[in-house]
Amino acid sequence: MIGIFDSGIGGLTVASAFREKLQGYDIVYFGDTARTPYGTKSPETVISYSLQNAEFLISQGAKIIVIACNTASSIAAGAIVNKFDIPLFEVITPAVNLSIQASRNFQIGVIGTRATIKSNIYEQKILQANPNARVYSVACPMLVPLVEEGWFKRPETRMIVKKYLHPLKVRKIDTLILGCTHYPLLKNIIQIKIGKRVKVIDSAEGVVEDVKRFLKNNPKVDGTLSKKEDHKIFVSDITEQFEKTAKVTLKRNVTLEHITIS
Amino acid sequence: MIGIFDSGIGGLTVASAFREKLQGYDIVYFGDTARTPYGTKSPETVISYSLQNAEFLISQGAKIIVIACNTASSIAAGAIVNKFDIPLFEVITPAVNLSIQASRNFQIGVIGTRATIKSNIYEQKILQANPNARVYSVACPMLVPLVEEGWFKRPETRMIVKKYLHPLKVRKIDTLILGCTHYPLLKNIIQIKIGKRVKVIDSAEGVVEDVKRFLKNNPKVDGTLSKKEDHKIFVSDITEQFEKTAKVTLKRNVTLEHITIS
Repeated sequence: MIGIFDSGIGGLTVASAFREKLQGYDIVYFGDTARTPYGTKSPETVISYSLQNAEFLISQGAKIIVIACNTASSIAAGAIVNKFDIPLFEVITPAVNLSIQASRNFQIGVIGTRATIKSNIYEQKILQANPNARVYSVACPMLVPLVEEGWFKRPETRMIVKKYLHPLKVRKIDTLILGCTHYPLLKNIIQIKIGKRVKVIDSAEGVVEDVKRFLKNNPKVDGTLSKKEDHKIFVSDITEQFEKTAKVTLKRNVTLEHITIS
Repeated sequence: MIGIFDSGIGGLTVASAFREKLQGYDIVYFGDTARTPYGTKSPETVISYSLQNAEFLISQGAKIIVIACNTASSIAAGAIVNKFDIPLFEVITPAVNLSIQASRNFQIGVIGTRATIKSNIYEQKILQANPNARVYSVACPMLVPLVEEGWFKRPETRMIVKKYLHPLKVRKIDTLILGCTHYPLLKNIIQIKIGKRVKVIDSAEGVVEDVKRFLKNNPKVDGTLSKKEDHKIFVSDITEQFEKTAKVTLKRNVTLEHITIS
């Protein structure tokens, strides 16, 4: 199976993209809702949780792993590769590549959780790809709670998004990376506030293309993946609100299965 | 020592009240910052985390335990009493008693996390104390992230507080219980938005008086408590933001000690 994990249910935007663009493949998703969010926590804690998540997916039969969480992607990808002998995909690199393709003036904005922005990984990777680029990053810690609260269109949400994006607007960026899997659920407001001439990049899109290409070039790995259109969603904690947000994210009814992780 | 635990650093408002009103007593505080927040999680998860926290405090020499977290108080107090043979105090009962003393019209408002409000414990306890009271409860999930972000005075915070308090204002409550240890940090805004004639009750105040009374009546337990003015603060995760909020809450520099819990 294709294993996908996230700090919570935001990563279902990525699972959804896999469902649409890699039809037939079996997917096992794990959302660490008992310890969510990761974006406000320290690197050591995020690494330790991510290793446990990867181990769980492998125990469920995952043959490749996708980290659907930007915070874990930016901090824990190296640790997972070191510990487990399994093809690993994260959401940072494909988003960086899409931004480099899309930008004309190479003034690129990035928004994410405090942990992701502090890791500085987007700036590093963008500058590797184009040393002349200028990267402007803003941590937006309130956006995850706003999404989890389901306040997608409230005036408070518009005010907070506007406040966070203001420094990027001033810099006249032409490309904006949504560096958190929760943010696509606020894409409409973000697009309005940053202006319609700015290309907004959703990190979920790039990673599916990456995996697709990898499987084409690695038919042996592809052969180990089951294709019965089976999609399992495990979470470490279940509440009504998590179920509600999962439904909004996937735009359909879903069954969450509860497991204990530590 | 007096052991105090919370889902994070909000409970330091309680630790602070103990420092002021039970001078000399040694305190060991544990904030579960690696798994914060509790208020959005399920009862099973909150109980399991709370038992681990109590066990840690006992291993550190706690002879009485105070649950400084409303969510854990409302859900996990029974489980802790069942498992450990130790005097236990929680923040719900004293806040209920204060509200019954303060109210004239017995139209009482309660605000808290989603888990606390859903547990319905404030309403149950208020009605036990006065069956003629009317209790109006509102879950305010955005307030904890606003406090942790340090947005104590921003216009967005004022708007969100106003929105949450509106149904209570309509009901003409004369007493409002702050059913979450983070909320005292927003007390000014809350008092302004609910109106100056409403008595706002901070759950930290009541629990210290409860413990003081208990120790006076139980000199044997009091004798087991060390009194060297030693205050230890343990957390399961350390970040700059946690340190900053701890400082704002305690109004002084503090050293957080990191421990791993599971």
